Amino acid sequence: METINKFRALVKKIKAYVYVLQLCGWDSNTEAPRGSFPRRAEMLGEISKVLFQLQTEQSTQDVVNELYSKREELDPLLRREVEKAKKDLDKVIKIPEDEFVEYQKIIQLAQISWQDAKEKSDFEIFKPSLQQIFDYNKKFVGYFNTGMKPYDVMLDDYEEGMTMVEFDAFFNVLRNELVPFVKEVLKVKPERKDDFILAFYDKENQEKFCDYLIDVLAFDRDRGLMKKSVHPFTWNTSPEDVRFTTRYLENFVFSSIFAAIHELGHATYEQQIDPKWNDTLLNGGTSMGIHESQSRFYENTIGRSLEFWQVHYPKFQELFPEQTKDVSVEDFYKAVNKVEASFIRVEADELTYPMHIMVRYEIEKMLFNEEVKVEELPTLWNKMMVEYLGIEPKNDAEGVLQDVHWSSGLIGYFPTYVLGSAYAAQFYHTMKKELNIDEIISNNEIKKINLWLKEKIHQYGSSKSPRELLLEVTGEDFNPMYYVDYLKEKYTKLYLE
Amino acid sequence: METINKFRALVKKIKAYVYVLQLCGWDSNTEAPRGSFPRRAEMLGEISKVLFQLQTEQSTQDVVNELYSKREELDPLLRREVEKAKKDLDKVIKIPEDEFVEYQKIIQLAQISWQDAKEKSDFEIFKPSLQQIFDYNKKFVGYFNTGMKPYDVMLDDYEEGMTMVEFDAFFNVLRNELVPFVKEVLKVKPERKDDFILAFYDKENQEKFCDYLIDVLAFDRDRGLMKKSVHPFTWNTSPEDVRFTTRYLENFVFSSIFAAIHELGHATYEQQIDPKWNDTLLNGGTSMGIHESQSRFYENTIGRSLEFWQVHYPKFQELFPEQTKDVSVEDFYKAVNKVEASFIRVEADELTYPMHIMVRYEIEKMLFNEEVKVEELPTLWNKMMVEYLGIEPKNDAEGVLQDVHWSSGLIGYFPTYVLGSAYAAQFYHTMKKELNIDEIISNNEIKKINLWLKEKIHQYGSSKSPRELLLEVTGEDFNPMYYVDYLKEKYTKLYLE
Repeated sequence: METINKFRALVKKIKAYVYVLQLCGWDSNTEAPRGSFPRRAEMLGEISKVLFQLQTEQSTQDVVNELYSKREELDPLLRREVEKAKKDLDKVIKIPEDEFVEYQKIIQLAQISWQDAKEKSDFEIFKPSLQQIFDYNKKFVGYFNTGMKPYDVMLDDYEEGMTMVEFDAFFNVLRNELVPFVKEVLKVKPERKDDFILAFYDKENQEKFCDYLIDVLAFDRDRGLMKKSVHPFTWNTSPEDVRFTTRYLENFVFSSIFAAIHELGHATYEQQIDPKWNDTLLNGGTSMGIHESQSRFYENTIGRSLEFWQVHYPKFQELFPEQTKDVSVEDFYKAVNKVEASFIRVEADELTYPMHIMVRYEIEKMLFNEEVKVEELPTLWNKMMVEYLGIEPKNDAEGVLQDVHWSSGLIGYFPTYVLGSAYAAQFYHTMKKELNIDEIISNNEIKKINLWLKEKIHQYGSSKSPRELLLEVTGEDFNPMYYVDYLKEKYTKLYLE
Repeated sequence: METINKFRALVKKIKAYVYVLQLCGWDSNTEAPRGSFPRRAEMLGEISKVLFQLQTEQSTQDVVNELYSKREELDPLLRREVEKAKKDLDKVIKIPEDEFVEYQKIIQLAQISWQDAKEKSDFEIFKPSLQQIFDYNKKFVGYFNTGMKPYDVMLDDYEEGMTMVEFDAFFNVLRNELVPFVKEVLKVKPERKDDFILAFYDKENQEKFCDYLIDVLAFDRDRGLMKKSVHPFTWNTSPEDVRFTTRYLENFVFSSIFAAIHELGHATYEQQIDPKWNDTLLNGGTSMGIHESQSRFYENTIGRSLEFWQVHYPKFQELFPEQTKDVSVEDFYKAVNKVEASFIRVEADELTYPMHIMVRYEIEKMLFNEEVKVEELPTLWNKMMVEYLGIEPKNDAEGVLQDVHWSSGLIGYFPTYVLGSAYAAQFYHTMKKELNIDEIISNNEIKKINLWLKEKIHQYGSSKSPRELLLEVTGEDFNPMYYVDYLKEKYTKLYLE
């Protein structure tokens, strides 16, 4: 009992440090003046050092290890917390300090070499850094002694319980079912009115429309806010303070709208978590995949539906009468669901998106498993793009160099993006049995959908694993066919009927 | 030497904690959603507790006391730091903990009773809190054993080196010289075009004009920014990160303009401090009075000058053509310098402002010296308003209850506001000998004034005391006649010629 109290006090203290660092991070990402960063790095360095000491000092290890050794006797929720704490602790203390420091330096330099390589579209510049990042991660994985295969350790880091066995099965379904379907869709070239997409839309009115969407999605303004930033993101410390950003491109209005809806999905998840988890390690969304399932559900399933735009297109037209004067709501609906084979993942549409992820997953897996050499990546990448999407990147910048992830050491992260869409489709399948979703959207009552998700998923924070949630909400284990069926149904109607 | 190193490391660590707390404060005051505050209080409470421990623990006391005992041998700058550290430390550790905690509670409750009292315009509601606040402060002062008179300790807290002797002399000059002058000015009721002041000015264009002023005053956007808040303020962590706010009232455009210029004055001071003081206790502006001298110099001397508006009024007219169509730059200039006897300090003009402060200073002093009882304040207040400005408040809300200061425990703070104006006039007198200020303003080269102030005042941070700065910059000790002369000259031209 005394150890449990110590654990609770420790968790709370650590959370307080994380809280202030998070707030500084929000400031850094949304408004801090450029000149403030060197001083900031120094000051936050001091605080991070104290936090690191607190997280790793002997007394902390003793508390965590003692509870871990008695985990069988603990209440299941406390046990889940202790297991998380033990996993996090091991990740830090099992890596020799000099290697950890060395790796941080490698990551710093990799950022620069990646930017440079991307700018010059020359993979050779980034190659040595990429090699080091994979080498170090393989070495680190070895220290953890999890008994898992190396790449599985990476995958499990971003999505608890998902390993190559599950992802291979998942991506095989997508490969078999979607690749031929996508090719069929891409063959159709319907005449559509969509030049209005790229017209000039002023930022002030885009911002007004995104502000309007906040209420459409029933986001609680008392416990959050919207701001702008270069890269849209969601930020939260607890359900009482959830913020998100979007960005305003004057020549591509969809960017602000769908970034806002996407981030509102993440933000709604965080706002609806029960605050009772605040002082535990079970706060926050349960995994990358489940988080992404929420953002993509709001963005694609709701935000790109005809029903949605039938209600909200008039508001959009009111703000942009000139740009939309000959554009019907059906034209608009078709434009927001336009399918195209394209090189850049972040600009890809809902249907071709999974192809982009499959390329990355296959390459990461082969690289981690030493089935391919770093120098072969550009060729392999381009070959797979041809295989999945029928197009070949003209250079490394629009190919293997496009994403920031690997240069930041994020290996095993990509698959969660598509996994999120697949989870979303499976949840959606269940939701449709209990709610008349089209009617809800048509009546502008999205709050009802929020409440369903709160009750079934959101409230639990990370007290349940992704797999538990899937089982409890949908009555079955992960089944990617819901995703395949959802995409086929939607895009058959849009392109093949 | 080892103790000095310990001192340096300690100062840096404390600064890092203060840094993150300051950033959280900026967020709280400018954008944090309402619902986030309870959780925030809890999290910041944890961090503040750690900081308090760090500031007061035995090892900290040992370091400070050891250096203090050897202060005669230290380098003068280090000695100044150590003396500051010792003073701050004593303030905290000499007050018995239970009394300190009790006082915090009193302050919390006083905020509420003051708000309530102000709303109902009933001094009786606030009276018990006010009594307690003065009682506790008198008791605390007794613990410090400074050998100073009690109210002098309070005054010195806000303005190093200023005691009742100095303030009495200062305010006697103002009473003798300005009270009759103000009465003379108030008798004149010139016919002036000034109804345009209260026209409707949209916030967007007000914001554009304030943004324009940022460059006019040559504020460095790379190391700062402007935002909005309910009460305008300047915030800074170091010269590399200085931010300020203004507020936009659609029916009183002067509010945003002069708040912006005022805060730009504070902000310019902070931006121009030499960053070499960052890791010392000699960073930041040297005193409230010197700080206020800068903000009031920019706001009143520059920002309310005819030369200033001759250059910038066209921009203002461009943004507000309708509201200003029959208004000449001379009309505008006269309107921004309109003198009126009014009840509310924060709305007072440059000339009547010192009268408001004199009322507060006299009352604080008498109360601290037990020459008046708390219950007599409303009557005393109103009597003095009649004496100095010839008007009598109709109720406590527009009289003794108007300011937040006393309910927050800020006693001895008010006089620094006017002291700032008087310092400003003395610096201005010297500056005019070295710079052609009218020409500089007319040529839109305020940067030159900034540089003069940087060289003479700003760069030193708080490594020099207010008195040292006055002596070194102007060649004489504090002399309030420059202030009297400045006001008489300006307002004779505006009203009596």
